[in-house]
Amino acid sequence: MLVVQKYGGTSVGSVERIKEVAKRVAKRKESGDDIVVVVSAMSGETNKLLKLAGEFSQNPKKREMDLLLSSGERVTSALLAIALTEMGYESTALSGRQAGIVTNKKHTQARIEHINIKSMERELGDGKIVVVAGFQGITEVGEVSTLGRGGSDLSAVAIAGALNADICEIYTDVDGIYTTDPRIEPKAKKLDRISYDEMLELASLGAKVLQTRSVELAKKLSVNLVTRSSFNDNEGTYILKEEDIMEKPLVSGIVIDKDQARVTLRGVSDKPGIAAEIFRKLASEGINVDMIIQNVGVDGSTNLGFTIHQDELDMTRDAMEAIGASQSVEFDKNIVKVSVVGVGMKSHSGVACTAFDTLADESINIEMISTSEIKVSMIINEKYGELAVRALHDAYKLDR
Amino acid sequence: MLVVQKYGGTSVGSVERIKEVAKRVAKRKESGDDIVVVVSAMSGETNKLLKLAGEFSQNPKKREMDLLLSSGERVTSALLAIALTEMGYESTALSGRQAGIVTNKKHTQARIEHINIKSMERELGDGKIVVVAGFQGITEVGEVSTLGRGGSDLSAVAIAGALNADICEIYTDVDGIYTTDPRIEPKAKKLDRISYDEMLELASLGAKVLQTRSVELAKKLSVNLVTRSSFNDNEGTYILKEEDIMEKPLVSGIVIDKDQARVTLRGVSDKPGIAAEIFRKLASEGINVDMIIQNVGVDGSTNLGFTIHQDELDMTRDAMEAIGASQSVEFDKNIVKVSVVGVGMKSHSGVACTAFDTLADESINIEMISTSEIKVSMIINEKYGELAVRALHDAYKLDR
Repeated sequence: MLVVQKYGGTSVGSVERIKEVAKRVAKRKESGDDIVVVVSAMSGETNKLLKLAGEFSQNPKKREMDLLLSSGERVTSALLAIALTEMGYESTALSGRQAGIVTNKKHTQARIEHINIKSMERELGDGKIVVVAGFQGITEVGEVSTLGRGGSDLSAVAIAGALNADICEIYTDVDGIYTTDPRIEPKAKKLDRISYDEMLELASLGAKVLQTRSVELAKKLSVNLVTRSSFNDNEGTYILKEEDIMEKPLVSGIVIDKDQARVTLRGVSDKPGIAAEIFRKLASEGINVDMIIQNVGVDGSTNLGFTIHQDELDMTRDAMEAIGASQSVEFDKNIVKVSVVGVGMKSHSGVACTAFDTLADESINIEMISTSEIKVSMIINEKYGELAVRALHDAYKLDR
Repeated sequence: MLVVQKYGGTSVGSVERIKEVAKRVAKRKESGDDIVVVVSAMSGETNKLLKLAGEFSQNPKKREMDLLLSSGERVTSALLAIALTEMGYESTALSGRQAGIVTNKKHTQARIEHINIKSMERELGDGKIVVVAGFQGITEVGEVSTLGRGGSDLSAVAIAGALNADICEIYTDVDGIYTTDPRIEPKAKKLDRISYDEMLELASLGAKVLQTRSVELAKKLSVNLVTRSSFNDNEGTYILKEEDIMEKPLVSGIVIDKDQARVTLRGVSDKPGIAAEIFRKLASEGINVDMIIQNVGVDGSTNLGFTIHQDELDMTRDAMEAIGASQSVEFDKNIVKVSVVGVGMKSHSGVACTAFDTLADESINIEMISTSEIKVSMIINEKYGELAVRALHDAYKLDR
């Protein structure tokens, strides 16, 4: 079996941690698997380099930032290869360049374009454990590039795809993906299996574990993922193709998003075409609109509501002003979005009803609703957020 | 004028220091020169990485050590380029690979084989300040290599040679090369000019400034060197071809070597061929012999004396034992070697006599003597070391 393992910053955050990782890798090698290990920079290192650069410029050249930032992962890869060799396991460290990772030229946020797998294949063929510096590659003209946030995960997934690996294991300091945030609902349970699409919808639950970009890439390349902790031997959460999940749960998880704000425009009917104008303006300003509802009021005028990220509230206010809609607009930051996610919804009716009933039983008013094939999202007053999560978690029996 | 500047670890040891270096480089650029800057790792960084590797292995793989150690200079080069760009000077940072530095494959102690100057020439042609990560290159097959101690100096000298630069400026935290160690003789004066060969003989005086390998390379490539301080604007010491030094001083400097030990074999004549056997054995053990004297004692037997590095005393003792010479051998660590160095000796007689007279006047017994074209070395009792240096410094009027 060919395994790609990726260890994040906290997993390689100290000499002791790197030694633990080496033991884990060695044990896997002993079991007969071929292994490519992708490593992040030791925790704190990348921030240290960012801070250093910040001492010289608020807007440093991105090309030079990439040369700077790529050094952290090189250090970890060399140290892990040294540790493995010392333990008697033939091992070789490869920089992103040496691993054949070619990206586009968008420095600090590059995308992987292709991977020249020759050197990794040669080293694996020699029976070596291959340790790759994550987060980095080179452009077509040989400049060092980095992949942005979550870049080492992307490296691992892309390598697993290129090598046609059997599994890509993402090691962090948490056990996997939970049915909901355990800080809100202590009864939250770790999920054994989940589909790519569910994972994408549960993004905020997995934010510390695996970023959306990596899940999307894994889905595209059909890479089997598992997220596990490097601090224990617990089974993690597998992220697979939907058809590879035998028992599809009705609902996989409940997720809460506290960073939304609601915008309401009242009586927009006096101004024909204003809805189109509003969304055109918001798009041109790069403001992401999440949910949209439109309804006709009792007086025949139309109310238009939508949600945005709280960080974009000021930009949105300016945009509304610019199109002369500031009089009729209201902003509300005191809301949260609670979503119920599950592939089982596709084939089962009544999932959404259970959600509405549950919140009604708790006397929580639902201000907006939007649904997709595998998700029901509801906007409610933020003070009921945690209560709603716990009630829904109970209603769908996610603690069983 | 094309200038190659090299800044050592203390010169780039902090954010403030790097900013000072950027100012110095910018000022030079303003004067109309083209500049390539070669940088070391920030002081302490390389030792930090060595220590980290030491936590995993006492004998880490050299290939991986190179990947590890090369990161420090990459960081500095990126930071300096960012600083220069922020100040409005177009600048680009190049890793050893990007600068085209190709070495042999002796990892951690590689030798530069050639430099592909295309990318440096292109960047200079665009008017940019080129900042190169020192100490590193790549092998023919693309592996990262490092050049060993003083490697960044070697990078700078080799680049200056390849680009046919007008001058290679080596910046450290000292002003230049002195007539002798100022801690021994406070009247020691900074030398304005010195030949490559004198510099090689005065190696210990310049040890903190410039290593022998770099001087040898500069001599071979006819690179004009100057060593200066990056902490002030003092003129440094130029190291030039002998023919480029107009006024050749009789004596340039006095140097003391406290790390020698003397080995004496008495009555070796009883064993024919033993001298050859001894030196063959020492050579096979990799022990460096410096001075050798042989003289016939009053009783007709031969005494053989030689000096070695103190660190190799135990190895030498073992070697003597192995060839059955341990009975007749004496070891003396309480000696020093004091040398008088100057190209003027070639054309002036009497230089050595002055040295002998001077020590005699101080009642210092000379135990061994060796001379070369530009150097007179004397072994004396270590307790007279500093006295001898001061007396000789005076005798040759080096404080004028």
